[in-house]
Amino acid sequence: MAKSHISGFPELLPEEKLVENGLMDSIRRVYESYGYSPIETSAVESLDVLLSKGSDDKEIYVLQRHTPKGEAPSPADMGLHFDLTIPLARYVSQNKNELSFPFKRHQIQKCWRGERPQEGRFREFYQADVDVICTDNLPLHYDAEVLEVGIRAMHSVAPGKFEVVVNNRKVVDGICTAFGLNTEQKASFSGAIDKLHKIGEEKCKEVLLQANIPQDCIELVFAAHREKRPLTDAKDILDSFGSNEALEVGKSELLAIAGHLPADLAAYAKFDPCTVRGLNYYTGTIFEGALHSHPHLSVCAGGRYDNLSELVGKQKMPGVGMSIGISRLYALLKQADAIKTGPATTSKVLISAFSEIQRHRCHEIANSLREKDVPCEEYFNFDNKIGKQIQYATRKGIRFVLFLGENGNLELKNLETHDQKQVSLDDLHSSIS
Amino acid sequence: MAKSHISGFPELLPEEKLVENGLMDSIRRVYESYGYSPIETSAVESLDVLLSKGSDDKEIYVLQRHTPKGEAPSPADMGLHFDLTIPLARYVSQNKNELSFPFKRHQIQKCWRGERPQEGRFREFYQADVDVICTDNLPLHYDAEVLEVGIRAMHSVAPGKFEVVVNNRKVVDGICTAFGLNTEQKASFSGAIDKLHKIGEEKCKEVLLQANIPQDCIELVFAAHREKRPLTDAKDILDSFGSNEALEVGKSELLAIAGHLPADLAAYAKFDPCTVRGLNYYTGTIFEGALHSHPHLSVCAGGRYDNLSELVGKQKMPGVGMSIGISRLYALLKQADAIKTGPATTSKVLISAFSEIQRHRCHEIANSLREKDVPCEEYFNFDNKIGKQIQYATRKGIRFVLFLGENGNLELKNLETHDQKQVSLDDLHSSIS
Repeated sequence: MAKSHISGFPELLPEEKLVENGLMDSIRRVYESYGYSPIETSAVESLDVLLSKGSDDKEIYVLQRHTPKGEAPSPADMGLHFDLTIPLARYVSQNKNELSFPFKRHQIQKCWRGERPQEGRFREFYQADVDVICTDNLPLHYDAEVLEVGIRAMHSVAPGKFEVVVNNRKVVDGICTAFGLNTEQKASFSGAIDKLHKIGEEKCKEVLLQANIPQDCIELVFAAHREKRPLTDAKDILDSFGSNEALEVGKSELLAIAGHLPADLAAYAKFDPCTVRGLNYYTGTIFEGALHSHPHLSVCAGGRYDNLSELVGKQKMPGVGMSIGISRLYALLKQADAIKTGPATTSKVLISAFSEIQRHRCHEIANSLREKDVPCEEYFNFDNKIGKQIQYATRKGIRFVLFLGENGNLELKNLETHDQKQVSLDDLHSSIS
Repeated sequence: MAKSHISGFPELLPEEKLVENGLMDSIRRVYESYGYSPIETSAVESLDVLLSKGSDDKEIYVLQRHTPKGEAPSPADMGLHFDLTIPLARYVSQNKNELSFPFKRHQIQKCWRGERPQEGRFREFYQADVDVICTDNLPLHYDAEVLEVGIRAMHSVAPGKFEVVVNNRKVVDGICTAFGLNTEQKASFSGAIDKLHKIGEEKCKEVLLQANIPQDCIELVFAAHREKRPLTDAKDILDSFGSNEALEVGKSELLAIAGHLPADLAAYAKFDPCTVRGLNYYTGTIFEGALHSHPHLSVCAGGRYDNLSELVGKQKMPGVGMSIGISRLYALLKQADAIKTGPATTSKVLISAFSEIQRHRCHEIANSLREKDVPCEEYFNFDNKIGKQIQYATRKGIRFVLFLGENGNLELKNLETHDQKQVSLDDLHSSIS
């Protein structure tokens, strides 16, 4: 990684940035293949909007115009967005007459949070979100689609390296009802099991017993969490919890979603009744994915919300969405040695020259390659000998060096095989592809 | 455009964002075809860095973590970058052992300025920069290349719709010397002619005469500005100004650059001795481009700087670069009716369904299209009749609607021609491309 200039604000070297761009392009392609259209909201929102539901005050960066000493400060009524969900709700409510519903959008942008930097946790980071929002009824099929899109996108950049646990808020409610928990106990139960994968069974059990959660309830959810069985097994597992309306609805929603996952993606989806996700705007389906190498750090997450847009508009608009944390995903894949950086440039060929006289001819060759969609670069420090020019190409990972031979012929050197051969301008293109 | 939520922070509708993304992709492709590698610096810099050379204090947005009433405010020592040049200098100086020189990079990112919004002037906007920086000598050929890359990139998105005026700081110095101007007069002269295209000849002349600039000097530069002849004519024009060292060096640099521009781009480059560019870090070549529709608003600009990196490091590193103002370019092209928005989605086909029973088959068809790189979307509000589903597709600009016929056959309707025909799954792909 490039040297970090301010803690929590990561930067990449060109060879790393090319890999990160590749991740983003793959994810974007998957999102768009399902018809999610790109939008981008401004990085800046009014503080009113940011301080609504789901935010932690202290994580927000407030903006103020710089004022020289002695001058009155400008008003601090704007801040940087900390996610892409609140801005989406604001955008949809503002532009609802111009948009078509169900509104399917993706949004790949930076977010900022003023929290303490830790492993995989940055103050400035990229997220890639997909959401679908409707003005009236939003069928459960969209929950299935969003889960599929998310898994497909993750599969495109980290095949075989992750899993996504799926749950439903109604299942959590149903379990609470089945064991007769009161409102206070429900809150303790949800809060504690959501942290289970971080704090471990012993500590979690302590908290649960303190809240008088029945022992058999604890055993059942712990067992399901430990086993983390395929999503398609959710019914079998939940049947042992008893039956009530919330539980039955939750179960049937989970099974419907599981049933629609294409065969090549099904193995990624697991069931875990202990996944709750803290955000208080989720109302149904919830999911959270992590890499096998870093099971405690979620790299993608999402769910169904029925009331989000009420925050900023008057109309109730149901939605379901998910988000991939690109900066974290890149950092963790890098750490797990699961991605390799390649060249520090897109150039395929370095066109060497050793005198002003060669410059014109070399420039024509370069531009004829560019016309054929072969990125290349010219070397203009003519005083540098061939050795130094090759060193430059090698260091940047450029595979071929082209130079003019004594009779004006073209000499092409492959820096990987060390082969060198004469080529014609017509053959050049095919020689390097 | 989407409804603006805060003045100066523009947002786009999906159909507009797709066009803006297209502009950015074209520009990126041109930059990378010349071997400029992508980097991205964090949006946030320390205030020390931002408050160095070339900045207007009041345009900087300072960041502070939100603090609830009563708590002590967090330190305000960071701000958002207002351009990509200062961050580049900081990045290069920090990572110079990891980079290869000459370091060629492009950077397409948002910048923020706390200035008053006006036509084509935003508080949050995209820039697309290319620069090359070296640790020792940086040949003039890079000036020629950067001008070429810039014109090529503009040509890729606004062919025939713009021109780029080129000048050289040494030419300005040489003119001052030729007419015996003292230091104070030089400053007045540069300042006034740089505004000539905005304030007009009469007002500019007033200022120049007040500074005792000789009448014949004024006439000569005004005439050259009025004619704005091809860059290749720079020698003829400047010969009439007399001769001195600075003028001769400036002339020869301009001509060398003009001589390297490929024939298909040469017509875009004009000479104008009145282009100075306010930024005090330029030392040689300078250029500034505008659309014919909006000649007073520059959409791309750049030049040679020899000392920029001294700002943040100890080493002197010469560089040359240019920047395209993407947000402004988009806004002005839109205003001039020079770009048309198309569909609001990348989907090529809407897969209609009218019952849960059809859902599974439709999903398989959709995924087989996606495997063949055909973006498509499924319609899940099965209660809506075909008319309503077609209305949805039409509104979003999706060209084809596919649905299951009575015998399970596939019916493909082209919403542009209103043709409808039976297709097989194998033919589907070719029927819609």
